[in-house]
Amino acid sequence: METELSNRLGIEHAIFGFTPFPAVAAAITRAGGFGVLGAVRYGAADELARDLDWMQEHTDGKPYGVDVVMPAKKVEGVTEADIEAMIPEGHRRFVQETLAKHGVPELAEGEASGWRITGWLEHVARSQLDVAFDYPVKLLANALGSPPPDVVERAHGHGILVAALAGSARHALHHKDAGLDIVVAQGYEAGGHTGEIASMVLTPEVVRAVDPLPVLAAGGIGSGEQIAAGLALGAQGVWLGSIWLTTDEAALTSPALTEKLLAAGSGDTVRSRALTGKPARQLRTEWTDAWEDPEGPDPLPMPLQGLLVAEAVSRIQKYEVEPLLGTPVGQIVGRMDAKRPVQAVFDDLTRGFERAIDRVNRIAGRA
Amino acid sequence: METELSNRLGIEHAIFGFTPFPAVAAAITRAGGFGVLGAVRYGAADELARDLDWMQEHTDGKPYGVDVVMPAKKVEGVTEADIEAMIPEGHRRFVQETLAKHGVPELAEGEASGWRITGWLEHVARSQLDVAFDYPVKLLANALGSPPPDVVERAHGHGILVAALAGSARHALHHKDAGLDIVVAQGYEAGGHTGEIASMVLTPEVVRAVDPLPVLAAGGIGSGEQIAAGLALGAQGVWLGSIWLTTDEAALTSPALTEKLLAAGSGDTVRSRALTGKPARQLRTEWTDAWEDPEGPDPLPMPLQGLLVAEAVSRIQKYEVEPLLGTPVGQIVGRMDAKRPVQAVFDDLTRGFERAIDRVNRIAGRA
Repeated sequence: METELSNRLGIEHAIFGFTPFPAVAAAITRAGGFGVLGAVRYGAADELARDLDWMQEHTDGKPYGVDVVMPAKKVEGVTEADIEAMIPEGHRRFVQETLAKHGVPELAEGEASGWRITGWLEHVARSQLDVAFDYPVKLLANALGSPPPDVVERAHGHGILVAALAGSARHALHHKDAGLDIVVAQGYEAGGHTGEIASMVLTPEVVRAVDPLPVLAAGGIGSGEQIAAGLALGAQGVWLGSIWLTTDEAALTSPALTEKLLAAGSGDTVRSRALTGKPARQLRTEWTDAWEDPEGPDPLPMPLQGLLVAEAVSRIQKYEVEPLLGTPVGQIVGRMDAKRPVQAVFDDLTRGFERAIDRVNRIAGRA
Repeated sequence: METELSNRLGIEHAIFGFTPFPAVAAAITRAGGFGVLGAVRYGAADELARDLDWMQEHTDGKPYGVDVVMPAKKVEGVTEADIEAMIPEGHRRFVQETLAKHGVPELAEGEASGWRITGWLEHVARSQLDVAFDYPVKLLANALGSPPPDVVERAHGHGILVAALAGSARHALHHKDAGLDIVVAQGYEAGGHTGEIASMVLTPEVVRAVDPLPVLAAGGIGSGEQIAAGLALGAQGVWLGSIWLTTDEAALTSPALTEKLLAAGSGDTVRSRALTGKPARQLRTEWTDAWEDPEGPDPLPMPLQGLLVAEAVSRIQKYEVEPLLGTPVGQIVGRMDAKRPVQAVFDDLTRGFERAIDRVNRIAGRA
């Protein structure tokens, strides 16, 4: 599965795998794809360094990338405490009431919230980049908007390609204007932050808008036939995130969450602002339902909502409170029905791709 | 573009075109596709007969189909007047206030509402079928649920294949159990009634669920590359509706509406209950916005909402009140940027399909 972009990156298959787990990212790269390690969950720079050391040792010299969440708009001198102070008391009360209703225990005294996602605060993302630039990463992806110009320049100085996610042709054009190298067209059906336009329409629209920049198709892809579809739509590769969550190498916080993912159907996700403040697709749970309730408060804007719910999410995960337990995941969750090694998933993708190509060739009268 | 289904129907290309306009349906059939005439807008059976006569004369003996909107649940003895009586006064007032706010003139005394869609009342749909069964139609499609068993039996008795739209694998399985021959997997991005699952995920899910029944991919398709994607996802054909709305042969109610469609982007649609009571994708207008307003009433369930708004829609269309003027259309509306003959659109589809197959073959190392 070769495109101009896969050749440029020196990978066998134009399959990009986004994952927060180093063991998954390394396995994707070893299988002939391109593993992208999500850095947003790393609070401390030395933890990221430790995991990138591990990636170096387990990727056989093959290429991989890092994904950060860096806001394009620079906010000078705002601390986490300043942002905390902006959270209304009524919202804090609603969170505690929702947890109490489900009997979620408190964290122990002094126990840190493990899920405290601060990676989208600019100074945290920058400290992650300082670490990442010390490693031979080949791709820097940004999950929200174009990275600031100095970051793009620094990446290019290290010979690193820069990618960013886009949910519309307008966003994609902004990335092109910012000097980025790759656009990830993230459709409505994707896990995590998404817009309203579904992949079938979004992918070709973004390809046309940013031509000749390469585009990766993201959202709804978890099989070889879907890869063939994404490439038929004009993409130079595909970007898969959800499908790796139920691999053996994934280190989800709990077996109960894995079971929920394996049991979920394509209709069991919701695009909700409950987790980060921006619409993000995730498992539908009683937690997301609580934030949809017209009687309750509306989610706060990013980054307030993420800070507001951080401790709650940690408690839900730690105590495996099943009705509230969720994670970002796309509509492809309906296809995730067995826990398997990354290599087995990858083999299915490449074999299914070949079968899909055989099939369309028969339809086109070419076989 | 040949599949088992296209061969069975005797068509050159597995492209199914749904349209309310006989001239469009006939042109699709003449071009080598399969035109499907939507019957829902016909109130009187003799109007449908007149248009099917015309179709017979303009399809060169090639096959075509008819689409009705028939509820699976039989409601005995309920008249339109009974249903009218169920509409709350507050809703009627809201409609009149919304029209007044935009200065929409009244219809003349005794002037009938042209947009009075009664085709989804069972007795109307049945009278349409009585007419359709007198013509050599090859396919009967139902837009909402499986048709009643006696209708399926009657169609099969005439050698007519029966299809129905499905927005989930569960709906699709219901169609299979009801003895239907074809499932149209209608993705989130489609115009008209849709579910939440986007085509990239829905198509293969429905294909797997109803195997070996043939599936048509619908939603988001308006180019040859999207046809290639739909077929790669396992469909035996594609079902396109929106793309024909801006053809020369389409008889939209007003040039202003055509202009709105040509100007709209993929983000300018909304999935709203404002038109029929069930979620249907359509142009976003100040009319759909009014029904999203939390201060206003919620749309009524089908068929109440359709009856409630029928006269309003007629007035908006007749007087071309631009801010309120809309129509069901999918996210592919962003691609509809020139008024052209059906044959030109069709040629683009087949040529674009060949180019997309060339491209994926190069990526797969087969070229």
